[in-house]
Amino acid sequence: MATATNSVSIDRSMVERIVRQVALEHLGRDSKGKAPELTVQTSSRHMHVCREDMDVLFGPGTELTFDRPLFQEGNFAAKETVTIVGPRSRIISNLRILGPMRKQSQVELAFTDAIMLGFSDLPIRLSGNIAGTPGAVIIGPKGVVELKEGVIRAAIHVHMNPTEAAYFGVKHGDMMKLRVGGPSGVTFNQVHVRVDPTSRLNVHMDTDEANACGLHLTKDVELFK
Amino acid sequence: MATATNSVSIDRSMVERIVRQVALEHLGRDSKGKAPELTVQTSSRHMHVCREDMDVLFGPGTELTFDRPLFQEGNFAAKETVTIVGPRSRIISNLRILGPMRKQSQVELAFTDAIMLGFSDLPIRLSGNIAGTPGAVIIGPKGVVELKEGVIRAAIHVHMNPTEAAYFGVKHGDMMKLRVGGPSGVTFNQVHVRVDPTSRLNVHMDTDEANACGLHLTKDVELFK
Repeated sequence: MATATNSVSIDRSMVERIVRQVALEHLGRDSKGKAPELTVQTSSRHMHVCREDMDVLFGPGTELTFDRPLFQEGNFAAKETVTIVGPRSRIISNLRILGPMRKQSQVELAFTDAIMLGFSDLPIRLSGNIAGTPGAVIIGPKGVVELKEGVIRAAIHVHMNPTEAAYFGVKHGDMMKLRVGGPSGVTFNQVHVRVDPTSRLNVHMDTDEANACGLHLTKDVELFK
Repeated sequence: MATATNSVSIDRSMVERIVRQVALEHLGRDSKGKAPELTVQTSSRHMHVCREDMDVLFGPGTELTFDRPLFQEGNFAAKETVTIVGPRSRIISNLRILGPMRKQSQVELAFTDAIMLGFSDLPIRLSGNIAGTPGAVIIGPKGVVELKEGVIRAAIHVHMNPTEAAYFGVKHGDMMKLRVGGPSGVTFNQVHVRVDPTSRLNVHMDTDEANACGLHLTKDVELFK
């Protein structure tokens, strides 16, 4: 009976290996199917600004000042920061702006930040999907903007290119799991897959998630379907 | 082959059911083995004080003032609070004291708190196991105590009585898993089992863990081996 059990699971894994190898060869990758290197990164609270809000917060026609590059090509942490005022009139200062500018302003907070500020039920959203989310007052050195919406907790997600998606056997919009080992030991069961040709494989989680799983204490991470 | 696979797993689950039923009957519980109700609670940062430190912080011979009961019988949130000063000279005020008094003072912080205060590598420990952990300066209304050790991040754990332990088939010191559903979807893979005859079944996690898994957004929780 034990043998029968094993042969069933071997059949399935063989099929998966063959499909994977064909997909990888089709895409011109290493046919040994070596796992792409996985980087897991923590996104601290931050803001994305649109052109119109940049004009008000930092002055008409101003541009974001490059401070350091982020993992995804073209993205960067700017030198500019703002202050956010929440519904309980509490504030967080030095909220970093990430560039480049976007079509819509958006603030991404961990729940710890949100609760401190007084957002009692901040929605969990993918970046850019801000319809119906709460707003906030944003204070810059040159002016104040009242965002009507755009404050979210970003859903945990993984960026990858189509070759990496083929390796994992997933497509844009799928969910994967991320297991983080070490002394905490946490598995994130709903990691949104974002596929884009310009992306590099990496998982973005917020500070609550990184602190819950003790991400700074381990290199034992595994992404799977 | 599928049948063979199934019969293997049925054999194992039958054995587990029989063992569980015998254990439950032996312990005088409902022989239907109805799952005990699971409560998952968030512990915000807090402090436990010993008699000596209470004397310094609040005055000789003072007692903790009951504010509200906690889930585990005999434990309570006190009205008394202190201020903790971390290694970066940053502070957290209104740090709540939980009663009753203990043999050793201890501060339990989430990593978010710890990083803000400047504890760069706070150890994850079970309550009471504080040898070799960092200390901190604690300020009370009547005096200041310099803790030599006792600042920890509490490891996620589940309290249960021996009957509940028999139901789950675990013993004191074992590890279990806790799956939290809802919009986040997180499984904690290393939940320490604490068995005591006076305990009621509940999981304690810290604010980072509760925020990471969106505990306030779901009632879908499952504890398993």
